[in-house]
Amino acid sequence: MTTIAVDCMGGDVGPSATVPACLNLLARHPQLRMLLVGREDVLGAISHPRAQIVPAQEVVAMDDTVEVAMRHKKQSSMRIAIEQVKLGHADVAVSAGNTGALMAIARYVLKTLDGIERPAIAYPLPNVKGGATTVLDLGANVDCNEHHLLQFAVLGSALDMAVKGRDKPTVGLLNIGSEAIKGSDMIKRAAELLQEADQKSLIHYFGNVEGNDIFKGTTDIVVCDGFVGNVTLKATEGLASMVATLLRQEFSRNLFTKAAAVVAMPVLNAFKKRVDPSVHNGAALLGLRGLVFKSHGSADQIAFEHALSKALDAADNHLLDKIETRIRQASVLF
Amino acid sequence: MTTIAVDCMGGDVGPSATVPACLNLLARHPQLRMLLVGREDVLGAISHPRAQIVPAQEVVAMDDTVEVAMRHKKQSSMRIAIEQVKLGHADVAVSAGNTGALMAIARYVLKTLDGIERPAIAYPLPNVKGGATTVLDLGANVDCNEHHLLQFAVLGSALDMAVKGRDKPTVGLLNIGSEAIKGSDMIKRAAELLQEADQKSLIHYFGNVEGNDIFKGTTDIVVCDGFVGNVTLKATEGLASMVATLLRQEFSRNLFTKAAAVVAMPVLNAFKKRVDPSVHNGAALLGLRGLVFKSHGSADQIAFEHALSKALDAADNHLLDKIETRIRQASVLF
Repeated sequence: MTTIAVDCMGGDVGPSATVPACLNLLARHPQLRMLLVGREDVLGAISHPRAQIVPAQEVVAMDDTVEVAMRHKKQSSMRIAIEQVKLGHADVAVSAGNTGALMAIARYVLKTLDGIERPAIAYPLPNVKGGATTVLDLGANVDCNEHHLLQFAVLGSALDMAVKGRDKPTVGLLNIGSEAIKGSDMIKRAAELLQEADQKSLIHYFGNVEGNDIFKGTTDIVVCDGFVGNVTLKATEGLASMVATLLRQEFSRNLFTKAAAVVAMPVLNAFKKRVDPSVHNGAALLGLRGLVFKSHGSADQIAFEHALSKALDAADNHLLDKIETRIRQASVLF
Repeated sequence: MTTIAVDCMGGDVGPSATVPACLNLLARHPQLRMLLVGREDVLGAISHPRAQIVPAQEVVAMDDTVEVAMRHKKQSSMRIAIEQVKLGHADVAVSAGNTGALMAIARYVLKTLDGIERPAIAYPLPNVKGGATTVLDLGANVDCNEHHLLQFAVLGSALDMAVKGRDKPTVGLLNIGSEAIKGSDMIKRAAELLQEADQKSLIHYFGNVEGNDIFKGTTDIVVCDGFVGNVTLKATEGLASMVATLLRQEFSRNLFTKAAAVVAMPVLNAFKKRVDPSVHNGAALLGLRGLVFKSHGSADQIAFEHALSKALDAADNHLLDKIETRIRQASVLF
C-alpha cells in the first residue's frame, strides 16, 4: 500500500485538474491510498474509500514570494502535503504550486540527506528519440561547484533507475564543446570528478555534452548548475511557444490557409502529441529526506495525472532508499 | 567606397556559396569593393571590376583546433582576410569558418580595444515580433565578471544602433527570475553596474530577463556570459532541429499525411521563412580594433549574403568609431 499526499490547491488550474487526476489514478491502482490536501469547502464533497481529505486553510499563490509562503502561510495545502511525508503518513508528496516556495518548504520541513548540501530539481525534457532527457539542476542552485554537479549526477541516476527502470543511465556534463579542454575551471574539475565516479561504478559517465544533446537524447541525464539549467529550460519553452504562435498565425492567415489547417490538423495533432511535455510531466526534488514531486504549474488533468503516476513509481521503487545508498557510496568523493 | 574582405573558403559549403553571394552583393551595391581571399585555383576564374582575388594557400577546416589554425596555417584564407582589415585594405572581414579559430585569429591579429578585456560574439536570434534579439556573449568567454557583462551591453548597443539603426536599444540581463533578488552574486553586481550605466545614459537598461524573453523580443539586446549563451544557443538549435525532424516524420507517415503535406506546404513554407535564422545570419565579433563578422558555418548563398550585407551596414555606419566612443565613455565604470 503506497500513499501519495497531494496539494490539491496548487497550480494555475487547481482542484478542477488535480482532483479528477487523483480519482483516475486511484481507479487505476487498487493498492494506492491518497491524502487530498486542501480547503474543506472545495474538497468536502469527495468520497472515495481510499482517499482521505486533509484540511488546509491556506493556499500558496503562484506569485507568492518564498518568504510569504514560508512565514505567513504555515497552514498552506503545499506545506501540509509535505508534512504528511515528514510524519510518515505518506510516501511521497505532489504539488503543482510555485517552484520556489515548494523547494523552500520541502527543504525546511524534510531537511537534506547526509552528504547533500543542496537539493536539486530534475526536469524531464522530451527528446527526438521519443523519450525524455532528465536535466538537473533546474533552478534551485545558482552558484554550484564540482561536488554539487557530482551529487546531481548521483541523484539523477538513482531517479532514472527508479522511475524509468533504466539499468545504467548515462550522465552527460553540459558544456560548451565536446572537447575535454573547453569550459570553465569548475567544469573541468567536475569532469574529473565524474570520471572518477564512473571508475568507481557510482555513475555511468558519458563525457561532455552540448545544449543540443538534450533534445538529441545523447545521454539519459544531463547535469548543469541551476542557473544554466533554468535559462536553458525557459529559453526552450520560449522557442516552443514562438513556434506554436507562428504556426497558428500562418494557418489562420486567410481562407486557403484555414482550409489547409483542417487537412493538416490530424498530422499537426500527432506532431503536438510527440513534443507534448505533459506526458513527461513531473519534476523530482532530489536530495531531501523524503520524496516530493513537482507538476508543471499549467498542468491540466492529464498532465497532473502523469506527475502523480511518476511519484507513485518513485515511491513503489523505493527511490529514497536507493538515493540514500548511492549517496553514501559516493560520499567518499564529495 | 567600402571594402569587404571575404574568406571565400570557410564554412561547410565554401566557395559555391560564398562566391555567388559576393557577386550578388557587388551587383546590388555599386560603391562596394571586395577582396576575395582563397585558393587561386578555385577563385582564379572570377572576374569583376570591383573584386580582387587575394591568394591564400591554406584553409582552416571546420574541425581544426585553435592551435592548428593559429600555428600551422598562417597562410589560411581566414587569417589573410582578417589581415586585410589590419593592413587597412578592407573595412571589415567576413568568414563562415570555425568560430573558435576565427575568434582566436581575430584577437591575435587585430588586438582588443582599450578598455576591453575580452571580445564577444553577438548573435541574432529570431523573435516572435518578427525581428531578432541580439544575444551576447555566445561562446568566447566562459568565466565572466560584472565588468565584462557591462562591456557586452555597451558593445551590443553600439552594434544595434549601427546595424539596425535603432535609436535606443534596450538591454536585458539574462537571469533566472525577473525579481531583482534572484541570481548569483556576480549577476547582482552586474545588475547594479548596468543600472549605473543607464543613469549615465551609456545604455538603456531594461532589467532582468529570463530565457523565454529572448524569443519574446522583450529587449533588443540580452547580455549573458559565454557559457550560458552558448548552451542556450545550442539548446534552442537542438529543439528547432527536433521540431523539424518530427514534423517531417509525421507528414511522411503514410499516403494521407503526404497528401496533407502537399496542401499544407505553402503555409509550412511561410512559417519556415518566419523562423528561418538565415535572414538574421551574421554574428559580430565585438571589442576588436577592426570589424569581423561571422556567418553560420552551414550558411548557403542567401544566408551568406545576409551576413555580408550586415557587415557592409556595420562598416558604412562606422560601427568601429561608435564602439570606440562608447567604450571610452563607459570606461569610467569598468
